[in-house]
Amino acid sequence: MVRIGIDVGGTGIQIGVVDRLGNILQKGEVVTRTDLPFDEQIAQMAACCLDTLTRSGHSLDELESIGAGVPGVANQATGVIPFCTNLGWHDVPFRTEFQKHINKPIYIDNDATVAGLAESVAGVSAGTSSSVFITLGTGVGGGIVINGKVWSGAHGVGSEIGHMTLELDGEPCTCGNRGCLERYCSATAIIRMARELLATHPDSEIMALCGGKPERINAKMVFAAARNGDAIGQKVFRRYVCYLAQAINSITAILDPEVIVLGGGVSKAGDFLLDAVREETPKYALFKSLPLPRIELARLGSDAGIIGAAMLG
Amino acid sequence: MVRIGIDVGGTGIQIGVVDRLGNILQKGEVVTRTDLPFDEQIAQMAACCLDTLTRSGHSLDELESIGAGVPGVANQATGVIPFCTNLGWHDVPFRTEFQKHINKPIYIDNDATVAGLAESVAGVSAGTSSSVFITLGTGVGGGIVINGKVWSGAHGVGSEIGHMTLELDGEPCTCGNRGCLERYCSATAIIRMARELLATHPDSEIMALCGGKPERINAKMVFAAARNGDAIGQKVFRRYVCYLAQAINSITAILDPEVIVLGGGVSKAGDFLLDAVREETPKYALFKSLPLPRIELARLGSDAGIIGAAMLG
Repeated sequence: MVRIGIDVGGTGIQIGVVDRLGNILQKGEVVTRTDLPFDEQIAQMAACCLDTLTRSGHSLDELESIGAGVPGVANQATGVIPFCTNLGWHDVPFRTEFQKHINKPIYIDNDATVAGLAESVAGVSAGTSSSVFITLGTGVGGGIVINGKVWSGAHGVGSEIGHMTLELDGEPCTCGNRGCLERYCSATAIIRMARELLATHPDSEIMALCGGKPERINAKMVFAAARNGDAIGQKVFRRYVCYLAQAINSITAILDPEVIVLGGGVSKAGDFLLDAVREETPKYALFKSLPLPRIELARLGSDAGIIGAAMLG
Repeated sequence: MVRIGIDVGGTGIQIGVVDRLGNILQKGEVVTRTDLPFDEQIAQMAACCLDTLTRSGHSLDELESIGAGVPGVANQATGVIPFCTNLGWHDVPFRTEFQKHINKPIYIDNDATVAGLAESVAGVSAGTSSSVFITLGTGVGGGIVINGKVWSGAHGVGSEIGHMTLELDGEPCTCGNRGCLERYCSATAIIRMARELLATHPDSEIMALCGGKPERINAKMVFAAARNGDAIGQKVFRRYVCYLAQAINSITAILDPEVIVLGGGVSKAGDFLLDAVREETPKYALFKSLPLPRIELARLGSDAGIIGAAMLG
């Protein structure tokens, strides 16, 4: 028996036939077409699923279930997606529409949740029964696994750890609140902090790396400058690690998982980031003599979306 | 079959024989004697358990299990209590010591967790499969139920929601960190805010209520003044509700339970508090058009400790 995992992205939709151990047997892709009506988008995805299944050498009888990770909110109970802004979806009946094409169990969840599940089944947190996956990208997302099962909340709006408050009346957030965690722990935060400091320290190496155009700064440039010993780069890096450590402490205080997994673009800084976060986080621990969650880097990379979606079943 | 629940407090230890529905059939009490060695404290508790069981008309054969809620950290896996400062316990083998007297399954957990479980079995959150209980007292504690089961973390240090960061570099906390949630949402926070404002507004009604001695202020006085229309009382109350709403939003962002239950001393303000919190919290919701956790007041009062401990089994 096999499963299909669908990683719904803003530009492309990755589809994979996956075995029960989380190995991808065959892949397919459709371009995200936000200009199409929802039912036609689903028809294209379903056609690609069937094609990929055939190419994997498996029949429909061997297909157990289909799972999809979406960059939005998913209601597992109803199979409805209340919000998926990148695809222009609002209150769409994903499951019932999909089952018109392939009548199998259809599971849906948020993409960060799905990536966290993938790591807990076939990645760095495999073998644990509790983990929190943190995607450090343009925003900050989360995936929670408790007692071996995904937890996305009673209304499907949990694991949105980027919108926990980290600072009362802090930086304005895209969600309308202030001081959300993702204003301090995302790539966007790194860029903001660097730009602020460059205004008074234009001699920083970051300015050279961005070709003198602060609007071109990205997190990679800031971390590269930090590695090279640039004072402003290091200042931003230290501040970022300090914020991330406090975010990890908040997650530990409430959930205390076995493992906290760092994923997303910022985590590509690798051991440079991991070592610093592992050193900083225990300083904020509530019980300093008790064991803390292990902190690890995500291992599955861009395949996590397909693998985790398949594992939703 | 019956169970025994033990509510271990700093001044008294409440013991109850409880049926499977959470009804207390018989009660007993022993005075907390921190001057006694740990094994003698346990011997006294066990003797009171046996006495209470007999008085309930049940035999040892009818006793399924014993559970204890402690004001500290409990490791359910090992039965060891790493910290229970009020009782002077440090790394004590609660389960093995207790089983020398009564050889039944022994369960332990944190007291706020136990109270949350009680509410979810026999109280205001009964019938739900996920809830977060928040004790608003001298500090802020938490009890988490997910998929009908208590979650206290992989290392027993979860559900310590009072020590999530609510303000970077904020108020110093007893734990050594700064800006912990309980510095803004506890009775202690209400008292601190009132004292700060009284320094420049000695004409507030709060000053009369405390007999002109700000060191005597308690949260009840501040809320009484707020109810009476006192400007300083109302200012503290509004600020407190605003902080609590953001704390509830953080909990919702990560866990999104069906119900959030407010317990502890501050929650005795009843509907005066509940109505304000219910009005304020949706302002911080990430998805304003989606359902949010219900917010309720705890219903079981001081019996929650016994009932929840018995339900740990």
